Amino acid sequence: MEVEFKAMLDDLDLLEKSLSDPAPIHKLRVHVENLAALSKCNPQRRSKVKELSSEVVDSNPYSRLMALQRMGIVENYERIREFSVAIVGVGGVGSVAAEMLTRCGIGRLLLYDYDSVELANMNRLFFRPDQVGMTKTDAAVQTLSEINPDVVLESFTMNITTVQGFETFTSSLTNKSFCPSKEGNGVDLVLSCVDNYEARMAVNQACNELRQTWMESGVSEDAVSGHIQLLVPGETACFACAPPLVVASGIDERTLKREGVCAASLPTTMGVVAGLLVQNSLKFLLNFGEVSPYLGYNSLKDFFPTMQMRPNPQCSNAACLERQKEYMLAKPERDAAAKAKMEAEALTAIDESPLHDDNEWNISVVNDENEKDTTKAASSSDTLPEGLTWELPDADEYEKTIAIKSGETEDEEDDLEDLKEQLEALNAA
Amino acid sequence: MEVEFKAMLDDLDLLEKSLSDPAPIHKLRVHVENLAALSKCNPQRRSKVKELSSEVVDSNPYSRLMALQRMGIVENYERIREFSVAIVGVGGVGSVAAEMLTRCGIGRLLLYDYDSVELANMNRLFFRPDQVGMTKTDAAVQTLSEINPDVVLESFTMNITTVQGFETFTSSLTNKSFCPSKEGNGVDLVLSCVDNYEARMAVNQACNELRQTWMESGVSEDAVSGHIQLLVPGETACFACAPPLVVASGIDERTLKREGVCAASLPTTMGVVAGLLVQNSLKFLLNFGEVSPYLGYNSLKDFFPTMQMRPNPQCSNAACLERQKEYMLAKPERDAAAKAKMEAEALTAIDESPLHDDNEWNISVVNDENEKDTTKAASSSDTLPEGLTWELPDADEYEKTIAIKSGETEDEEDDLEDLKEQLEALNAA
Repeated sequence: MEVEFKAMLDDLDLLEKSLSDPAPIHKLRVHVENLAALSKCNPQRRSKVKELSSEVVDSNPYSRLMALQRMGIVENYERIREFSVAIVGVGGVGSVAAEMLTRCGIGRLLLYDYDSVELANMNRLFFRPDQVGMTKTDAAVQTLSEINPDVVLESFTMNITTVQGFETFTSSLTNKSFCPSKEGNGVDLVLSCVDNYEARMAVNQACNELRQTWMESGVSEDAVSGHIQLLVPGETACFACAPPLVVASGIDERTLKREGVCAASLPTTMGVVAGLLVQNSLKFLLNFGEVSPYLGYNSLKDFFPTMQMRPNPQCSNAACLERQKEYMLAKPERDAAAKAKMEAEALTAIDESPLHDDNEWNISVVNDENEKDTTKAASSSDTLPEGLTWELPDADEYEKTIAIKSGETEDEEDDLEDLKEQLEALNAA
Repeated sequence: MEVEFKAMLDDLDLLEKSLSDPAPIHKLRVHVENLAALSKCNPQRRSKVKELSSEVVDSNPYSRLMALQRMGIVENYERIREFSVAIVGVGGVGSVAAEMLTRCGIGRLLLYDYDSVELANMNRLFFRPDQVGMTKTDAAVQTLSEINPDVVLESFTMNITTVQGFETFTSSLTNKSFCPSKEGNGVDLVLSCVDNYEARMAVNQACNELRQTWMESGVSEDAVSGHIQLLVPGETACFACAPPLVVASGIDERTLKREGVCAASLPTTMGVVAGLLVQNSLKFLLNFGEVSPYLGYNSLKDFFPTMQMRPNPQCSNAACLERQKEYMLAKPERDAAAKAKMEAEALTAIDESPLHDDNEWNISVVNDENEKDTTKAASSSDTLPEGLTWELPDADEYEKTIAIKSGETEDEEDDLEDLKEQLEALNAA
């Protein structure tokens, strides 16, 4: 397009020289300049926001997220802007995880990858055919900055398994310029979304050295299962505590392929794993729900195994052994903190119990069991806001109708059989 | 940009009239036309493919999908190009489901929505800020056709709950022009990705009338749970067989909001639900794994309940009762087919068992239990391809090492406690 603009301006110059009145040419040149400017910028890109608003208007990109507070799920959603998350590997899982965090309004994202976008990646979400040939980090920054200009994006186009790459990786994790008051490292969480053992071991090494909490993710070669795992150095098993049974030795594992066969992949499995990974990250960062230590996904049977892994006292990773020692030594401190917390909670409970010392109006709690039968239907409807009705008849009323008909015991047996089948399926899985 | 091109062409027309020689103006007009064409098309858009190739090259968008065949997961992946899927509701779940199916190379997608893209939708995947103001169907077609030009996209910008909308909806589902030889309707599966009761009941009505298998999906108002469900008219419960307990009556349910609060939503929950929905669809269409009748997702506890629901003989939906009757009447036919299939399988098993009648080379199967101890280490290494080594020592070797040390019973107790905790967590969920 730029070539075309240039040629057009040259032709306009020629035409201007041959004319007595240059005014129409000036006008045309303004058009060309306007068009050139339009072709470069995205006219509808949204502007940055200063504060997250919970106002319920169509133009607020954060209304549905701030609603998490009013729904009682998250205590303070706005804290998300203070967090930095590093994503290692911007492939089928990492790119989707980055997009989810970007749309959630994360403060800062650090992206690491050395690969380029190929047409063969188009069976996963995120990258577009027009980005083929770009590095994955550049393409990701392009897309993510358009989606949410509020997120600070830092990209590192490099291999973290090389000596120099590993150094850049660890120093970027410790850089605290985004939030100097932060305790610990410069990032709150590292997400490993890589597809090979060597890179996982590099992330593991860096996080063990830096006492950095991280989450690991993976998708099977046959594309139909995956997992996520939380790793807290010293407290949980590290990646080297229970390594895979079989690893490449002496040759580049990426060259290890069954003859003419690449690994299969599906946008569904990778999307689910990215979703579970970022959901676990949000729970960890924003302190809601239960953070899963390990969650598997077997898509053929829709089975989701969970487990917990303690560190291996014979772990081959020296930094892991150091962290394990530190964790043991800090036990009295943790116990004291837990005790203090329990006592504080007990105290609050006592504070709350005598809500009113006096009972000026003689209000008392009365057992309404006896009144239930007559008032139930009316009171249960009363609890619904205006505009809502119960879709099904009241259970008591329904039972009366049923009682008139003859008993149908067959249905009950079917339900029992269903339950049995489910139990067997669970045991078989 | 189009306005600018138009103004420029008008100015060129004016200039042409004032000039004696029109040649330079013609030249300029060609430039403008080239630029207008360039601004509309995507220069790197990939061309359509005739057949899905399994060749392992970076330029093949289907290599990772065709690998599912070689991995033994799917028998014939290429069949995906024959399937038509209708997606009702192109919001947080429907848009992602459409993108996943598009990237999987589905034959044809029918999209239904009447809503427009807003900035308030940016906390879910798929839509971009530059699409704000476009209808969701137009924006989806724009993005999806860029991602995969092989997919036939048909969009319906309308509300299926109106009388006219419902008619258009049912007639589009029965249109068989894409694959005239197909049995049944023109679509293989309907995915309901709507956010309200009225629209779900409309999909339910249409599918019951048309004997159309469909899948329902939903995400809770507090954004932290969701579900998918398979509905086969007559065979499983329909949506009216077990309706929600509370529904809107007499007023538009979309106006039903707690004061100043919109429903919360998260890209993670919606991405996971879309992934589970499309995974179940792929299993259903391509005949692999186990299709889940119902799968819930509780993200706070990472709990995934499953269940099966039989049709309700007192269902309020007349078409459902008709389908139930048909299903009962076809029971002998189903039983006969199941019996024939079992017998055919038994016959194949018999055919296979006597693989060789004679034993020309006197080959016999020998119990190698006694030789095991001496050869095990060598043989287990031998089974690994070149370049792979066992990361952990052989279990027998490791036991010998451990036996030297004193027994560590503490670890065993910890594991038991872990298991207990997991059991309690499962019971509590």
